[in-house]
Amino acid sequence: MSEQKNNKAARALPVVNARIYPKGGLDVLSRDEVARLKDASSGGMHDLLRRCALAVLTSGSASDDPRAAQELYPDFDIQVLQQDRGVRIDLHNAPAMAFVDGEIIRGIAELLFAVVRDLAYTAIELGPEYAADLESSAGLTNAVFGLLRNARLLQPADPNLVVCWGGHSIGRDEYQYTKNVGYELGLRGLDICTGCGPGAMKGPMKGATIAHAKQRKRRMRYIGITEPGIIAAESPNPIVNHLVIMPDIEKRLEAFVRLGHGIIVFPGGVGTAEEILYLLGILLREENADRPFPFILTGPTASAPYFEQIDQFIRLTLGEAAASRYEIIIADPERVAKQMIAGIRKVREHRIAQKDSFFFNWGMHIPFDMQQPFVPTHDAMASLDLHHGRKPQDLAADLRRAFSGIVAGNVKEDGMRRVEEHGPFQIHGDTDIMQALDALLQAFVEQRRMKISGQYKPCYQVVA
Amino acid sequence: MSEQKNNKAARALPVVNARIYPKGGLDVLSRDEVARLKDASSGGMHDLLRRCALAVLTSGSASDDPRAAQELYPDFDIQVLQQDRGVRIDLHNAPAMAFVDGEIIRGIAELLFAVVRDLAYTAIELGPEYAADLESSAGLTNAVFGLLRNARLLQPADPNLVVCWGGHSIGRDEYQYTKNVGYELGLRGLDICTGCGPGAMKGPMKGATIAHAKQRKRRMRYIGITEPGIIAAESPNPIVNHLVIMPDIEKRLEAFVRLGHGIIVFPGGVGTAEEILYLLGILLREENADRPFPFILTGPTASAPYFEQIDQFIRLTLGEAAASRYEIIIADPERVAKQMIAGIRKVREHRIAQKDSFFFNWGMHIPFDMQQPFVPTHDAMASLDLHHGRKPQDLAADLRRAFSGIVAGNVKEDGMRRVEEHGPFQIHGDTDIMQALDALLQAFVEQRRMKISGQYKPCYQVVA
Amino acid sequence: MSEQKNNKAARALPVVNARIYPKGGLDVLSRDEVARLKDASSGGMHDLLRRCALAVLTSGSASDDPRAAQELYPDFDIQVLQQDRGVRIDLHNAPAMAFVDGEIIRGIAELLFAVVRDLAYTAIELGPEYAADLESSAGLTNAVFGLLRNARLLQPADPNLVVCWGGHSIGRDEYQYTKNVGYELGLRGLDICTGCGPGAMKGPMKGATIAHAKQRKRRMRYIGITEPGIIAAESPNPIVNHLVIMPDIEKRLEAFVRLGHGIIVFPGGVGTAEEILYLLGILLREENADRPFPFILTGPTASAPYFEQIDQFIRLTLGEAAASRYEIIIADPERVAKQMIAGIRKVREHRIAQKDSFFFNWGMHIPFDMQQPFVPTHDAMASLDLHHGRKPQDLAADLRRAFSGIVAGNVKEDGMRRVEEHGPFQIHGDTDIMQALDALLQAFVEQRRMKISGQYKPCYQVVA
Amino acid sequence: MSEQKNNKAARALPVVNARIYPKGGLDVLSRDEVARLKDASSGGMHDLLRRCALAVLTSGSASDDPRAAQELYPDFDIQVLQQDRGVRIDLHNAPAMAFVDGEIIRGIAELLFAVVRDLAYTAIELGPEYAADLESSAGLTNAVFGLLRNARLLQPADPNLVVCWGGHSIGRDEYQYTKNVGYELGLRGLDICTGCGPGAMKGPMKGATIAHAKQRKRRMRYIGITEPGIIAAESPNPIVNHLVIMPDIEKRLEAFVRLGHGIIVFPGGVGTAEEILYLLGILLREENADRPFPFILTGPTASAPYFEQIDQFIRLTLGEAAASRYEIIIADPERVAKQMIAGIRKVREHRIAQKDSFFFNWGMHIPFDMQQPFVPTHDAMASLDLHHGRKPQDLAADLRRAFSGIVAGNVKEDGMRRVEEHGPFQIHGDTDIMQALDALLQAFVEQRRMKISGQYKPCYQVVA
Repeated sequence: MSEQKNNKAARALPVVNARIYPKGGLDVLSRDEVARLKDASSGGMHDLLRRCALAVLTSGSASDDPRAAQELYPDFDIQVLQQDRGVRIDLHNAPAMAFVDGEIIRGIAELLFAVVRDLAYTAIELGPEYAADLESSAGLTNAVFGLLRNARLLQPADPNLVVCWGGHSIGRDEYQYTKNVGYELGLRGLDICTGCGPGAMKGPMKGATIAHAKQRKRRMRYIGITEPGIIAAESPNPIVNHLVIMPDIEKRLEAFVRLGHGIIVFPGGVGTAEEILYLLGILLREENADRPFPFILTGPTASAPYFEQIDQFIRLTLGEAAASRYEIIIADPERVAKQMIAGIRKVREHRIAQKDSFFFNWGMHIPFDMQQPFVPTHDAMASLDLHHGRKPQDLAADLRRAFSGIVAGNVKEDGMRRVEEHGPFQIHGDTDIMQALDALLQAFVEQRRMKISGQYKPCYQVVA
Repeated sequence: MSEQKNNKAARALPVVNARIYPKGGLDVLSRDEVARLKDASSGGMHDLLRRCALAVLTSGSASDDPRAAQELYPDFDIQVLQQDRGVRIDLHNAPAMAFVDGEIIRGIAELLFAVVRDLAYTAIELGPEYAADLESSAGLTNAVFGLLRNARLLQPADPNLVVCWGGHSIGRDEYQYTKNVGYELGLRGLDICTGCGPGAMKGPMKGATIAHAKQRKRRMRYIGITEPGIIAAESPNPIVNHLVIMPDIEKRLEAFVRLGHGIIVFPGGVGTAEEILYLLGILLREENADRPFPFILTGPTASAPYFEQIDQFIRLTLGEAAASRYEIIIADPERVAKQMIAGIRKVREHRIAQKDSFFFNWGMHIPFDMQQPFVPTHDAMASLDLHHGRKPQDLAADLRRAFSGIVAGNVKEDGMRRVEEHGPFQIHGDTDIMQALDALLQAFVEQRRMKISGQYKPCYQVVA
Repeated sequence: MSEQKNNKAARALPVVNARIYPKGGLDVLSRDEVARLKDASSGGMHDLLRRCALAVLTSGSASDDPRAAQELYPDFDIQVLQQDRGVRIDLHNAPAMAFVDGEIIRGIAELLFAVVRDLAYTAIELGPEYAADLESSAGLTNAVFGLLRNARLLQPADPNLVVCWGGHSIGRDEYQYTKNVGYELGLRGLDICTGCGPGAMKGPMKGATIAHAKQRKRRMRYIGITEPGIIAAESPNPIVNHLVIMPDIEKRLEAFVRLGHGIIVFPGGVGTAEEILYLLGILLREENADRPFPFILTGPTASAPYFEQIDQFIRLTLGEAAASRYEIIIADPERVAKQMIAGIRKVREHRIAQKDSFFFNWGMHIPFDMQQPFVPTHDAMASLDLHHGRKPQDLAADLRRAFSGIVAGNVKEDGMRRVEEHGPFQIHGDTDIMQALDALLQAFVEQRRMKISGQYKPCYQVVA
Repeated sequence: MSEQKNNKAARALPVVNARIYPKGGLDVLSRDEVARLKDASSGGMHDLLRRCALAVLTSGSASDDPRAAQELYPDFDIQVLQQDRGVRIDLHNAPAMAFVDGEIIRGIAELLFAVVRDLAYTAIELGPEYAADLESSAGLTNAVFGLLRNARLLQPADPNLVVCWGGHSIGRDEYQYTKNVGYELGLRGLDICTGCGPGAMKGPMKGATIAHAKQRKRRMRYIGITEPGIIAAESPNPIVNHLVIMPDIEKRLEAFVRLGHGIIVFPGGVGTAEEILYLLGILLREENADRPFPFILTGPTASAPYFEQIDQFIRLTLGEAAASRYEIIIADPERVAKQMIAGIRKVREHRIAQKDSFFFNWGMHIPFDMQQPFVPTHDAMASLDLHHGRKPQDLAADLRRAFSGIVAGNVKEDGMRRVEEHGPFQIHGDTDIMQALDALLQAFVEQRRMKISGQYKPCYQVVA
């Protein structure tokens, strides 16, 4: 590996040029595959590759601002080159922080290979000739499976993977709490899977690391599942040792559900509330009724109100039965871990009884429409149906969409512009449901979990 | 695993019913793949699967007669079944010799998984939608690569794989000699790859096994490369720990050349002579002129005449230069091993200089026509061009074909019938070449390396 | 393992009873050894065993006050029992914090086995029948070797072990700095050995842990070397994965020197200054003149004065040549690591040239008198010889003793009482040397590195 | 490693000089240990070391005649040298057959290290200062334990070690049978321990090797237990991968009994019959009455009479109960293996119930007098007591001694000379017992299992 420090007068940060020869899956490629990899990385995908690579190369840096990385390393570039023996990655003006004495840090190199692997695989395997596969629910699930297997994440082993969801910018107490929970999970041999950014996505891994070291665990998995729009903004934290980049948000959510053996939700913003509704939309389906899946909402004492409000909202809209699908535990990391262990034990028994694999939750039913992206146009919002009497799972899915649209109408540029142009969204629904939703949003604003300028004002009208 | 011994009165040999859950590559499949595997094994491929599986289950039995196995286990059947967790293989009335106290012998199970894997992969990956790939030399090479990689045979490691060719029914002395050579190769850390049957395909592995044990080698590879028409007749010997079934003879030959880092030829029948001409047809190409490839013909003292005659024939027809591509070593196993080590060292240096992979010989040029099967019809034989003055590599390839056709006309049912119907083959060639070929065949008959009834009589006419 | 929580009303902290079956060296014992182990642990050594075990079982707890542990777990007890199959350890009323769901944390168990192993080995191997061995320098070195080997610390491997010395109660900035240095050492593959307590003994390990994880290092060693008088006061930090208890302070110091391939000294109290003088007393000997041994003093900018004062003191008393044996680096963790790497490379070359082992520094000469404990009586102090003109190594050794005695006279109960009874120590030495020593102590008092009540007042008189 | 072939005109066989740096236990020695090792190997023990080393270096050669090796390599010498880093072994004029291209074969090197280790350990640990230990039964057992542990043979693992006894020069059929039994044992995952020479000591290992390979067993143990008087005459066969040299025959026998989890006896000569009586002398003791220990006598059909005669003799002399301690199985290798598996399962349960270790049979009672060598003088023979009515175990032990003495009187130089000088042994015993013993010996002579010149003639007189 050659090292060359370019210290232009105008640039503050030291950079390095390097050649890297990948291992682990990228080392036994056919000539064709190498060529396609090269093409994929030089064509329309090049900018995406560049951004993702930079995110990985600045992994663990203090700043979480993606633009910062782009601005700090404006001349960074990456190229994937063909050599008969395999692939070579050339880095130009790469952040020196990823190197030690001219050698790239091995963990960083692994994440970099993961980026190249996943973007190339997506480009190759999910290309036009596979389009037909993506037009059915089974086809989409198969694509998710393919991406996860290609990332070497599917291994026959006892169920032990806990997915942790929650906000990326949370309070100090909440962060410490996620570490404590991770520690208790780690003491019991559980592995961690998160969205791979900071905050509630880093804390559980950090806690588990210490516990795993104490328990002398040898093979620990800190899995980060991300997607191109997120990774650049949320650099994988440096603990992640398995990284996979899914093509879009829906496949990322499906990956969490199919890979994890249980899910813990820490406090977060509105995004976290949406994720809860997404998961309920799946778990409440009749097909999944008997399927064990530990689902725990937890936080420190100060965060109790957040979950209480969500709980109330769910009970009102989806019914008491819906609330039986999750457990709320406040300020008790040990209990969280014990309940997760108990829940995963049931998952294990169920999989054995069903002769289902441990490594991929084939049996969980996810309907085709929940695998599709939801874009909150006025038409889309008007087609929602938020009345009592619907099946809870369908209502949950539509609530998530309504939720997503209303948030967009209040805080996202796109949504706000649409509302300005076309007036408030017209939503068909029962008044009490809409009021509850409103109350929930207002509470988030008050807890500063949703940041708006000025006062909260509904951006929709209820149409009975 | 359930065991049930069916001892019908009419059957001499004990059989077992068993359910087997595969590992190693068949354990992380998608639902679709499992379904296709099931389909592939139940459709037209079922009889092939049944025959190959039976060959593996009787691996190491005294008899090498394929019909014997079929007759001894007439009720044997195999089914590949889908389970959500993966694949299940059901065996009915399987030879009890493959089991110990109701448990299948682990090495046998591995070979069985290899059979299912390769037949299924061939059916899936080389199916109609890939037809276009098979219409170019690069496409065919890619298919060979794909099959070998899928069989987990391609691993980044230092070059150390010696291919051994030679007859499956050879004399006691010749067999002992192949063991001695294998022993010397094994002492020097080399791994062995053969056609996986008995005779010269078993001896080198057996010798290497003892040497590897003495050298405390941990990961030793005894690779068997076979094809559907051969495996049933030549059960893999029980030492084989990596088995791959290529779709046809030409891909099998290409696999030997691309996988091995050197080739040793022991005495054999006419088939062995054909293989020598095949390899010369490749090595003599200008594209491969500077490519190191250790190629050694060797046997005990009594076998010296066999190689002398072949050597003379090559010098006469292909020129002295052709003879410089191989070395003949008589009765000196240690020297064979030392020369092989020296040759492989050059291969290693060349690959590094060319940035070519160690695990697959991408650089070796094999022309498209040598990747195609040759069927010795009268037309095909008449199109051969056996005159002096041609490029040696082309002449070598045509000589191999002529050789193949003449052998067929003398000993194979198909060929003999054709000659009877249409008269002798008309071959365009120089008289001295054809006489030399004739002399060679006659010598083989005398050495009982080619078995004909009655006296040898040329089945062709030379057309100038 | 049985669990039983005893929650007497009067006790705040939860406790557990457990039976533990050791592994790793305690699992293949003879009947006699088991019996002696049992005897050793039940006789005079029982209280020592109890205290050390409790230190380990509270490893990582917030408090570093040894009495706290004793008071918090007054009913704790440990017994080593004989079973034919080996050893069983019974814990009564043990801190519940060392257990998860009734199972002892594996890393804690390993440290516990280390405690039993070392105390037993000391009792058995250094018992009366070996007394003769301990009357020579070679015999003592042999005892150190035996203890380290028995602790499985001696393995053939490339030199990479850095010993870190420094204070156990240091400032926040200094602690952070030790982490940064450990991080840079870890990035370069170096392992860490310390006194195994908090502060400068924990920081480098913590930093290295993160770096090792990033570099995907598989076998990392965080070695703690302690002795019975220290372990109870300074619980091993939870990162330590190899623990050895040496019989006394001198053997502990020798273990550091013979095991480590280089030493880094962080800021500390007077004890750290003594350690620097100890090491100089060895390195300045003619026998060790050509022996490479990287020796770096380092700290953050704010700690520069500490090292400057020590440096000045050394130059004045031991001469400029003495100062060439170490390097002072301020506020540059990366440079510390690079210099250490460079120094260890020289150690490696020297060992190879001398055919000395990598794992134990047999060649380093440590004189018999430096292997003996120094008790600062008035007689002992009067026998010191602190005049210019002595060999620097001898002066260094006596300075260390003077230093030790004066500190005792000022802050340790024993020493203060002696001075009160018999008057000030009478020290033979040159005035300028004694004044320099005085100035150094005064500076430590001002920096609050030596805690005295009231003002510093010399407890000795100089006798020319 | 330097290689130098000395081909003096007068010497037929090629030799090599080499320097070897040991691993595995000899690589972390103290300076003292290295020095003692050097002393031990250069003093009175040098000739013993030389002979044992030569036996190992000619391991696997055709000849089993020890004198042959000494005569073929008259200039061979070995020296153990001290280096600071550890031990170096210098070989002079060593058999070239142990080397490949100047490098010693790794397995041979391991056996060589074992020889040095055991002879040195014996010299060091069983030296005069330990004499007291050897004056009690427990002390002797402890010495056996120490030697086996030092040879790394004691590892915590499930019981699976089968000891195979039998003749070293047996017929072709009998040899093939031992291979078949070894194969069936190996298929079931059992490891093999023998006296490490040829014949019945090699066959079971050879059979197990093939089965272990088929079962893809990773860690297989082929343990050879020998002693200085035997190893030179019976080179370890090349399959042995763990070798231990016990100080004398009695410790070797005890090692078999304490290490093995079951014993199989194949046909052999008179020595084998003695071993059977030795084992019965132990198993018939009241202390061992409830101790499971699978003990199987087996051979091909043609060997049935051998075991029948022994069985009859035992029933007559020791009673029917004695015969219940073993099982005779003729011509059924699979049954032998199944019974051994069943027996070892009981051993396992018993050890767990007794909390005894799996790796050393501490519980088996072996009386002090059976741990002492028996020298068949006239006095010793006269002190035997071969009357009905004694405890079977005592009678068994004395029968073994009588047997041993009578054989000596008939075929061993020493014994024959004594009888010639002092007349026939005077043995106190019942006539029928002595007649049965006589009949048994006569049968052995007829089966050519005991080789005498002329006709068999009793060398003793019965004294009532």
